[in-house]
Amino acid sequence: MEDVPGHNRPSSFDAMLAATTPLDPIVTAVIHPCDSASLIGALEARDKGLITPVLVGPPDRIHATATEIGADLTGVEIIPSKHSHDSAARAVALVREGRVQALMKGALHTDEVMSAAVDKATGLRTERRMSHVFVLDVPRYSKPLLITDAAINIYPDLQCKADIVQNAIELAHAIGVDLPKVAILSAIETVYPKIPSTVEAAALCKMADRGQITGGLLDGPLAFDNAISTRAAKAKGIISDVAGEADILVAPDLEAGNMIAKQLMYLAGADSAGLVLGARVPIMLTSRADGTLSRLVSAALAQLLVHDRLGKGLM
Amino acid sequence: MEDVPGHNRPSSFDAMLAATTPLDPIVTAVIHPCDSASLIGALEARDKGLITPVLVGPPDRIHATATEIGADLTGVEIIPSKHSHDSAARAVALVREGRVQALMKGALHTDEVMSAAVDKATGLRTERRMSHVFVLDVPRYSKPLLITDAAINIYPDLQCKADIVQNAIELAHAIGVDLPKVAILSAIETVYPKIPSTVEAAALCKMADRGQITGGLLDGPLAFDNAISTRAAKAKGIISDVAGEADILVAPDLEAGNMIAKQLMYLAGADSAGLVLGARVPIMLTSRADGTLSRLVSAALAQLLVHDRLGKGLM
Repeated sequence: MEDVPGHNRPSSFDAMLAATTPLDPIVTAVIHPCDSASLIGALEARDKGLITPVLVGPPDRIHATATEIGADLTGVEIIPSKHSHDSAARAVALVREGRVQALMKGALHTDEVMSAAVDKATGLRTERRMSHVFVLDVPRYSKPLLITDAAINIYPDLQCKADIVQNAIELAHAIGVDLPKVAILSAIETVYPKIPSTVEAAALCKMADRGQITGGLLDGPLAFDNAISTRAAKAKGIISDVAGEADILVAPDLEAGNMIAKQLMYLAGADSAGLVLGARVPIMLTSRADGTLSRLVSAALAQLLVHDRLGKGLM
Repeated sequence: MEDVPGHNRPSSFDAMLAATTPLDPIVTAVIHPCDSASLIGALEARDKGLITPVLVGPPDRIHATATEIGADLTGVEIIPSKHSHDSAARAVALVREGRVQALMKGALHTDEVMSAAVDKATGLRTERRMSHVFVLDVPRYSKPLLITDAAINIYPDLQCKADIVQNAIELAHAIGVDLPKVAILSAIETVYPKIPSTVEAAALCKMADRGQITGGLLDGPLAFDNAISTRAAKAKGIISDVAGEADILVAPDLEAGNMIAKQLMYLAGADSAGLVLGARVPIMLTSRADGTLSRLVSAALAQLLVHDRLGKGLM
């Protein structure tokens, strides 16, 4: 892939990490950091000045993990819990008490984190649905590519899709894309009543026209090629400010979204990071397979988002 | 109502009738003209040079009606039929034989005409669904107002609505509105997933963006007031090239469309005419309650449409 355009361009992830330099670390509850990958991720994010970790988990297991990786936990706050479910519940409570500005998933299932976050009585719901946004650094694409929702909402309905789009736009703003171009994906670029995602894509565009979704430039339905290739869009005769230049790809459902994101990571050499938005605070949902860069950039995204919100008086 | 703006403006119906002056009459099968209103309507349209009638019905009943109204049928072609169903079938067959350019409903039910027209084997189907368009001359509105579909399609689905819109645009072109402004109506102007017509309105706009609907400027959803009042549109902060200036109102279903049209006729003093489009030829569907002006203008609309199609090589 040495000869493909953009392959040796500056990494957008490096730029995001650099953008965090002047910012204070955000206080982050690390939920159940009881395996080496999650504790290393949290401590490296601290060392880079991205987060101030508050470790939530059984103290003996956290200390055993620290010993295993040779880490010194002096000065790191630990909030004791009994087990992984309890860690999630306590971390969410720390948010509600105003003691932490973000959550980072450790050695537990995503479901455990999310079920604590979505609890109607004790969770972190806002007026917006929670959704996940992948941020990808794709070698053959000239800028960061946000993909949503590839992790949380399985078959989102139209109202949920509106929130998914708004969440992704908020993250795009936080990483410095002032008017993100949002491509609502389907299999085709025309409205075809038998493919409901084409109709919903059109509805999302009109919601933006009417101010029900703000801060982005929407178009859809667009097929994947129309969304990211100006040439493909031109070949189809699509007149659009978004086609070929998307910052955000909105998948019709989780299956398609997940496959797009994984394909870019595994076959197109993309680096990835990601966040859950729409909760009171951002949630870093890294998975066991994620490397250090992915964990660091997810923390950087959370830090950029929190400071963007603080700057706008939203936190 | 003497003081309302536009009340004494030149009638748009007069203008439409004047526009037909240079045009040859169109050969029109008059289906079952066996009562005075329908036979008078056909003969008056002939006298104005709008149509050349071909009367399709039982000859004895047609002659009896002529005697009743004191009309002379010398030189008028009569195609004999046995009863009203047979009249409809024979009139439709005349279209398929290329012998007539339009149909005019006489003394029979709309259902009888339409069931002959929609017959899959022997009818007048095109690639487009048939739909009805009312053309209203509303004293308090500055231009003709087309309303669709208030007569044929009860609960149209999205594909049918696309055809309804395209049919209305075609008629607008024929009466000289080069780029008609099409308002897709709903109860509100925002996209609200629980009101499917708002979602479908958005989808229709995107179909226009993608060239699936052509020749008009679409916006919707729009509430009735936003569609026809610039002030109401401004008050809602709606940014739209259509709002307040609609040429065509597209109703979400037949119930709403019919009530809008009837309200304008009965309480807002509107004159009305109408056509069915989407069949091989235009169908004039006047009802028993229609006066002479309504019947004449419906014939003028058909004549304008046929000549517009002839000019474009479509007939």
